[in-house]
Amino acid sequence: MRLIHTITELRRALAGAGAAFVPTMGNLHAGHLALVEQAGRAGRPVVVSIFVNPLQFGPGEDFERYPRTLEADCALLEPLGVDYVFAPAVDELYPQPQRFRVEPPLADELCGAHRPGHFAGVCTVVLKLFNIVQPHVAVFGKKDYQQLYLIRAMVREFNLPIAILAGETVRAADGLALSSRNGYLTPEERAEAPRLYRTLLTLRERLAAGARDLATLEAEAAAALTAHGWQVDYVSVRSQATLLAPKPNERALVVLAAARLGATRLIDNVEVELSEPGL
Amino acid sequence: MRLIHTITELRRALAGAGAAFVPTMGNLHAGHLALVEQAGRAGRPVVVSIFVNPLQFGPGEDFERYPRTLEADCALLEPLGVDYVFAPAVDELYPQPQRFRVEPPLADELCGAHRPGHFAGVCTVVLKLFNIVQPHVAVFGKKDYQQLYLIRAMVREFNLPIAILAGETVRAADGLALSSRNGYLTPEERAEAPRLYRTLLTLRERLAAGARDLATLEAEAAAALTAHGWQVDYVSVRSQATLLAPKPNERALVVLAAARLGATRLIDNVEVELSEPGL
Repeated sequence: MRLIHTITELRRALAGAGAAFVPTMGNLHAGHLALVEQAGRAGRPVVVSIFVNPLQFGPGEDFERYPRTLEADCALLEPLGVDYVFAPAVDELYPQPQRFRVEPPLADELCGAHRPGHFAGVCTVVLKLFNIVQPHVAVFGKKDYQQLYLIRAMVREFNLPIAILAGETVRAADGLALSSRNGYLTPEERAEAPRLYRTLLTLRERLAAGARDLATLEAEAAAALTAHGWQVDYVSVRSQATLLAPKPNERALVVLAAARLGATRLIDNVEVELSEPGL
Repeated sequence: MRLIHTITELRRALAGAGAAFVPTMGNLHAGHLALVEQAGRAGRPVVVSIFVNPLQFGPGEDFERYPRTLEADCALLEPLGVDYVFAPAVDELYPQPQRFRVEPPLADELCGAHRPGHFAGVCTVVLKLFNIVQPHVAVFGKKDYQQLYLIRAMVREFNLPIAILAGETVRAADGLALSSRNGYLTPEERAEAPRLYRTLLTLRERLAAGARDLATLEAEAAAALTAHGWQVDYVSVRSQATLLAPKPNERALVVLAAARLGATRLIDNVEVELSEPGL
């Protein structure tokens, strides 16, 4: 496994080999490692990038305190047969201020509504990394569902010759989706945190049982969280195909939520396939 | 020379060969052909795209009447040794509405100020074409100076592995820069049109003679055009490096203008290298 810090060196090392690529912000956990293993099954050189991208953090967000743990990350990646870890400095990706941006859709939906500019920053850095790595395939986790949706749409609409694979969310034994931000939680918050996933499961069960009034289901789920000290950004049932409100007869849905426990913002989601009748 | 209409067929034909690429909107003239010849000297397969891109035309602009002359274009390209002409239908590049856009800088400068969304549309389609063709080198004319500047900046800021070559502006014997839009001019307008270039040359001579009050030079040049029936969008002296107002001591400048004769909007520019003293 080679640790590479510059674009020039990475391009020279890859020499046009279409890699399997996993972009990350580091501070790796079992969720990332599952994505890396999935990339490994593509039978191509595996590239993992580790880059805390300032462009996707808003003012007052956690860019400064986001954990940087490069040495530990490399120790986790080495046994997985990763070929290249690409860990550029901020100046390497942004030698001058980044003036060109990707302007993605759904900027006012879900997390977009609560994190202005976040997805423009994500899509911009992912496009840059795609152009640097020129991978054949790239893997993104379902945990960041709106991100995965947008990357897939960007690849399609910008005609990037890259296959996007989705990795299932990895969870702790109590159901909490693994996330680097879980490390911010106090022990009390950590004990409370699994309620987010349980609340989504409850909503899914009610849909499975035939409930179809989405606004009420969403409001009840948000109230259940608020009652336990959460500050809820949203709980929302959306179409998997559009991430907008589902149309009548749409049956492939996803329930998404974002809520804060103290200073920590957590997100999660569960997919739902409605049986008859649809909405 | 092969005429190709679909992305799939073009990708299969190129099979990863890094081409020399000239994107055009067709209705080719000697200016385009000079770019194609320049591409030919790269010693790679030459791809010319012909696509009138709806995304870069504003409401009330000339998208509908823009001349489509594919057969004549191919007859001009064949003798130049072009390998592939890529002429996709609008639905091939935009099978669904394009939601993802490139957001370029300088959107409120020069032509950007007069054609809202134009350069976002240009950069978006060029990024798509780059991803489809995956060229090693691409050629753009200096006639569209702001476009050339933005494409170069986009390549740099999005880390596209493509070399951008600039082609010199080709002019008629009377100095008028060749442009497909010249075909819109009445005989009287065509006789008047070379004044645009002459006015830029006069401004450049005054700079060479030591004049340094840019606002006055610009106003005089605009007045000279207005006096002969032109509606002037701008005449502006800018930095070649930034396309913004030049800083003191900047010496690589460019004088750009856009003005309308009747219903036809013409643009032109001349580069200026100031000798001592700078501004």
